[in-house]
Amino acid sequence: MIQQHGGNIGHLSNIFDFSANINPLGAPESVKKAVAETVCDIEKYPDPYCTELRDRLGKHERISAENIVCGNGADDLIFRIVHAFRPERALICVPTFSEYSRVLSETGCEIQEHILDEELDFELGESILTNLDRSLDMCFICTPNNPTGRLIAPEILAKISVKCLENNIILVCDECFMGFVEDSENYSLRQFLNEKCIILKAFTKLFAMAGIRLGYAVCGSSRIAERIQQSGQFWSVSALAQTAGIAALDETEYVNKTVRYITEKRRFLAAELAKIGVKVYDGAANFLMFRSRIELAEKLLAEGILIRDCANFSGLTEGFYRVAVRTHDENIRLINAVRRFLNG
Amino acid sequence: MIQQHGGNIGHLSNIFDFSANINPLGAPESVKKAVAETVCDIEKYPDPYCTELRDRLGKHERISAENIVCGNGADDLIFRIVHAFRPERALICVPTFSEYSRVLSETGCEIQEHILDEELDFELGESILTNLDRSLDMCFICTPNNPTGRLIAPEILAKISVKCLENNIILVCDECFMGFVEDSENYSLRQFLNEKCIILKAFTKLFAMAGIRLGYAVCGSSRIAERIQQSGQFWSVSALAQTAGIAALDETEYVNKTVRYITEKRRFLAAELAKIGVKVYDGAANFLMFRSRIELAEKLLAEGILIRDCANFSGLTEGFYRVAVRTHDENIRLINAVRRFLNG
Repeated sequence: MIQQHGGNIGHLSNIFDFSANINPLGAPESVKKAVAETVCDIEKYPDPYCTELRDRLGKHERISAENIVCGNGADDLIFRIVHAFRPERALICVPTFSEYSRVLSETGCEIQEHILDEELDFELGESILTNLDRSLDMCFICTPNNPTGRLIAPEILAKISVKCLENNIILVCDECFMGFVEDSENYSLRQFLNEKCIILKAFTKLFAMAGIRLGYAVCGSSRIAERIQQSGQFWSVSALAQTAGIAALDETEYVNKTVRYITEKRRFLAAELAKIGVKVYDGAANFLMFRSRIELAEKLLAEGILIRDCANFSGLTEGFYRVAVRTHDENIRLINAVRRFLNG
Repeated sequence: MIQQHGGNIGHLSNIFDFSANINPLGAPESVKKAVAETVCDIEKYPDPYCTELRDRLGKHERISAENIVCGNGADDLIFRIVHAFRPERALICVPTFSEYSRVLSETGCEIQEHILDEELDFELGESILTNLDRSLDMCFICTPNNPTGRLIAPEILAKISVKCLENNIILVCDECFMGFVEDSENYSLRQFLNEKCIILKAFTKLFAMAGIRLGYAVCGSSRIAERIQQSGQFWSVSALAQTAGIAALDETEYVNKTVRYITEKRRFLAAELAKIGVKVYDGAANFLMFRSRIELAEKLLAEGILIRDCANFSGLTEGFYRVAVRTHDENIRLINAVRRFLNG
């Protein structure tokens, strides 16, 4: 069974889900409370422009609210961006999140793949720069990249943003997992933002609110933001999601705690998996990709542990798996199960 | 101030909103309760296929769940339908809901307008049939139509569905307000459903849950349903919306009560407005369109009453207004204010 995405466990219960990359600390109480209180108000149409939420996001991102667009999850924004600009030729860096190519294909865009080298542990390096020329209209990058977990080095990010600007390429940088990264400001495209840049961010993962849907785009130009806003459906973000987002933005301590928690657990998980003999890639997010010499997903599922089989990612083959960083006890359970299968 | 849609009152409070067509009975308690209970579960990704909700909808609509697609409001489905089939030439019947032409234009589709005749009180008649030929890929109809409130006669609907099938035209019939109509089964395209038909339905209006987002499409063919499902974002329907929808489907008595309530209040409102001297069109939904010889929207807004100025609908001019059917006291307030302006 190969999943199209993680987190789709349907009716399965009593399963340890390492396939969805959700904050193991759970949604902040303030977010749940805000949503529960909004339920009384569900009669009203949501504000289609998400005015209050965008104001708050503007302050959070130190940019004008006019440069921000909210969406029904970051996924909604990927669609709206592609439909708004209808690129004829776009670059993606594989392996990566499959929605970019799905949407680009749907609109008839020609997709050029920059293949991340397994020998270089899938790190995005300078070689991408030679691909960034006037033949492209759009370029998708993802940092930390899904499923590899690899960050893009700040100096490479800076060069990519300049080259895209020079060549009139819209640069979409998916930072949906950046909230889990230590010292994230140092790795974000935010510091090199120019008028061709769009940064995608999600509340879904960091604030463990996947059941609601909320993402946003920070655009280098308000003109680009307006075009994305006008593309797609009018009321894309529910009133509940807007309330949840506003509450979440106050949760600075929760975010700090999350980063400390995830960093510690990820290091432990990576070290233990490496000891067992799988090749673990140096991920910076709340998940890890590893390569195993034997099939693991089906074996683990039989034990009630769901992991993400990455064989259907372009640029990967069988044997690559992605696991979320969960609580200590859950991680131990995963480690023990993997050890058992690999040792015999 | 001309609004793009009703219901966008932003920060205004203490306003009587007749611009949004929401059930004045408010959301059923069971729906609010179901949503509030799901808040504890917001960590989980929603089921992208809305399996349980679609099963329930299939029973409700007496069709296989495979013929049903759920969306983040009916609006989301309009986008996904157009993006899935990318019609080159489409017919719309104006005046009507503006999102059809907005999405069609966005994808570069050539739009042909069938103009509903004011002399015939904007009723859709046989004359549309001559427009339905092989040059078209898609046709949008809306019954009861927004903003006119007019129903399409069953015999016309039957002929349209046959002609679309014969000419390979996808027929999208927007029935988002059909839930408010007396004897609705007699007016629904459901009875003439063939493999080229798609019926759009919304929970938003009937169950007064505009702040959540939920709509669905009943497709005449599961192949069409699958293409719509695959177009657009993967997780479009939030877990909260799925829960709310499942709870709402049990609310048979609430729906019956709504229909009785709306029918009674609409007749009263129509009769009173006609007495004042505005031309009221024979609407069957939870709103009414009327024509006034004087400007009313700005005057009413100054009194705290928001109505929908329809001057920006293609096929209408200044002087057309749409008002929601609200509670008796609210309707009286509207009637009195309109009377005062028209008599003074």
